[in-house]
Amino acid sequence: MFKKILIANRGEIALRIIRTCKEMGIKTVAVYSTADKESLHVRFADEAVCIGPPASAQSYLNIPTLIAAAEITNADAIHPGYGFLSENAEFSRICQENGIKFIGATAEMINQMGDKATAKATMIKAGVPVVPGSDGLLESVEQGKKIANKIKYPVIIKATAGGGGRGMRIIHSDEEFQKAWDDARTESKAAFGNDGMYLEKYVVEPRHIEVQIVGDQYGRVCHLSERDCSIQRRHQKLVEEAPSPFMTPELRERMGAAAVAGASAINYEGVGTIEFLVDKNRDFYFMEMNTRIQVEHPVTEEVINYDLIKEQIKVAAGIPISGNNYGPKLHAMECRINAEDPANGFRPSPGKITVLHIPGGHGVRVDTHVYAGYSIPPNYDSMIAKLITVAQTREECIVKMKRALSEFVVEGVKTTIPFHLKLMDDEKFKEGVFTTAFLETFDFSTL
Amino acid sequence: MFKKILIANRGEIALRIIRTCKEMGIKTVAVYSTADKESLHVRFADEAVCIGPPASAQSYLNIPTLIAAAEITNADAIHPGYGFLSENAEFSRICQENGIKFIGATAEMINQMGDKATAKATMIKAGVPVVPGSDGLLESVEQGKKIANKIKYPVIIKATAGGGGRGMRIIHSDEEFQKAWDDARTESKAAFGNDGMYLEKYVVEPRHIEVQIVGDQYGRVCHLSERDCSIQRRHQKLVEEAPSPFMTPELRERMGAAAVAGASAINYEGVGTIEFLVDKNRDFYFMEMNTRIQVEHPVTEEVINYDLIKEQIKVAAGIPISGNNYGPKLHAMECRINAEDPANGFRPSPGKITVLHIPGGHGVRVDTHVYAGYSIPPNYDSMIAKLITVAQTREECIVKMKRALSEFVVEGVKTTIPFHLKLMDDEKFKEGVFTTAFLETFDFSTL
Repeated sequence: MFKKILIANRGEIALRIIRTCKEMGIKTVAVYSTADKESLHVRFADEAVCIGPPASAQSYLNIPTLIAAAEITNADAIHPGYGFLSENAEFSRICQENGIKFIGATAEMINQMGDKATAKATMIKAGVPVVPGSDGLLESVEQGKKIANKIKYPVIIKATAGGGGRGMRIIHSDEEFQKAWDDARTESKAAFGNDGMYLEKYVVEPRHIEVQIVGDQYGRVCHLSERDCSIQRRHQKLVEEAPSPFMTPELRERMGAAAVAGASAINYEGVGTIEFLVDKNRDFYFMEMNTRIQVEHPVTEEVINYDLIKEQIKVAAGIPISGNNYGPKLHAMECRINAEDPANGFRPSPGKITVLHIPGGHGVRVDTHVYAGYSIPPNYDSMIAKLITVAQTREECIVKMKRALSEFVVEGVKTTIPFHLKLMDDEKFKEGVFTTAFLETFDFSTL
Repeated sequence: MFKKILIANRGEIALRIIRTCKEMGIKTVAVYSTADKESLHVRFADEAVCIGPPASAQSYLNIPTLIAAAEITNADAIHPGYGFLSENAEFSRICQENGIKFIGATAEMINQMGDKATAKATMIKAGVPVVPGSDGLLESVEQGKKIANKIKYPVIIKATAGGGGRGMRIIHSDEEFQKAWDDARTESKAAFGNDGMYLEKYVVEPRHIEVQIVGDQYGRVCHLSERDCSIQRRHQKLVEEAPSPFMTPELRERMGAAAVAGASAINYEGVGTIEFLVDKNRDFYFMEMNTRIQVEHPVTEEVINYDLIKEQIKVAAGIPISGNNYGPKLHAMECRINAEDPANGFRPSPGKITVLHIPGGHGVRVDTHVYAGYSIPPNYDSMIAKLITVAQTREECIVKMKRALSEFVVEGVKTTIPFHLKLMDDEKFKEGVFTTAFLETFDFSTL
């Protein structure tokens, strides 16, 4: 087992990793920018090294400094957390070259999953469903109609040079095709100077459901069931839960098997997540793979009663897994408490926390690095806490979350707590009937 | 279901009950003495009524005032918590007479279990093992030897008028009997003016293991497995855990069946606990029954994933239970964090909490009513928090507790945290090899 792990991250995830290391008897090294010197991860680590100024590029993303910090402190492994360098193939490679175990994927695995086209091709080969569509650029309306009829309408055509919704059209029938094609190409030409188009099946009313997997160094991969992360605002997850209210045992088995097949195809080692879009017919399509621990991992921990960071460190140290899959025994939910003003477009609200009261009691877990008197720096992610509840049923989990949110007091900065409180009272949310578009029609004005 | 519950208690248990009521959609009324007006249970309840001055006799034990508070606020039930009036038959009866549901045992059940002789007789009738001994006073050495040979040595003879260890002798053989008898009678006569003696089997190296039971209004009783509470100082529990490290599946079945038989014998309704002494041969003997929720109920909640306060309220409202027994799926432990100085005989240390940091993260639960700036009044119990950890195994549970204790910061008052930290490093404790005498030889001087 490792003797000392350097945590190349900050905030709640740094503290989260330190906690597990303490429980495993592994020494820890915290790193921090000058903006973070008062953070709890610095206080609770066995050692702490200042790695530079607030700007991430010069601190948390500074590979030579991090490697130097690990060498100076004699750390034999680096845990990258999420974000920052957690999916940076170069960092993974440099760690390896310096004889420091990178607790995450190898450079090769990161590259295979980081490039969308390569990842998609790998998944197709492994038999994992991907969103079907044209094989590269569309040549004509006729070709487009042919593919659309094969994969079934609706489809979406997208500008190959596009982005931000421009040069994009949803098409529901052969009749609509010509006009959509003409309009999208004109728009694309005007916007990007390029009218190349490709076609994909349009996933209707999709849910974002992801499968947690763990792989060891001996080729065994298992899944730990799913998380539903459909409650998103502009692709930012705000609430995650396990199990998905849309799940069936049969779908879990199919998605779990696909996730295991996908991860096995690249001999995946470590914890990882395969993200899928699931349509209303419960057909699912590979979106991407995250080759790291995720923000929302606690909901899985709560429903299977395992410590995922511990599992991650164990497989990195070469300990084999049993290979058994794990299904959820309870229902868990996580609300991301961000220092943002939800009534004003989730504008970041850094500053000093003057009063803090954290909820507790049965079925309530809080992961946070902040305390009363702590100043949230404006330089990083605005998440200040994760509030997780766990109960026998989804209904109980939601009322518990509402109760815990009502006890959560943060003064001095705006937070997303009022948004979460309103969401927990939303009838559609309570029924579990929502897609990734749910928040598009949510009324934030009365928060 | 009840519409409004008055909580006739204070501190963490009042808050604990409020939390569950909130989750169940039941309104709550807090009561408080003037010493407790800044307590969180007052803040988090829907309504709060001041019931008198700090002295318990005039506030938390004042039955007419409590009944008046319930009537004024239109509460349809009273939850007594633990301690105070929770096992007061008169209070239970008066509640009933006033049409207020007492969330606990009836006056009859409380009386049956409150008197030791009656309780013992009831248990014998129900086939529950009790400590065997003489049927009333011993008449002679010859009679004593006869009983001792039947129930097997060692035995203990006790002065019927005795107390505090005086007039008491442990006897290991027929040869020792005469001298012990003479000495004990002389001592008893001198101390109490009465030399009446009775005899009981002496339970060697006992553990305190208790079984949690739940009974409904329809005669169904089930058990929720055991808690080991052997870590006591002068009969005050300091650490509790589930399952007991001394337990075997076979013993759990026997003890569970005995507890269910005992509770069924009095048609027990509500949550309750049957406390047993268990000797090194895994023979067990009824000690007493607590007809209320106990301080240490969270360890059971964590290993079976149920909210016991919710179950308690449900059965009080007439909802039937399934009648199934529940075994532990995980390992949980509770450390009582008291405002006491463990290095100075656990002397109470009331006062203002100047700094407070509560641990969090995976597998950590904290039940507390205190916050930074809170003044612990000198009038009541010194418990300020319950720290509970839960994990897959006892070993993991202990390292998690150690980690959580190391994060727990309370400044301004002395606490039992240093004691618990030392205990978690004790080899015998870690091995699970201890009896109720464990703390008698514990070195408190180095805390």
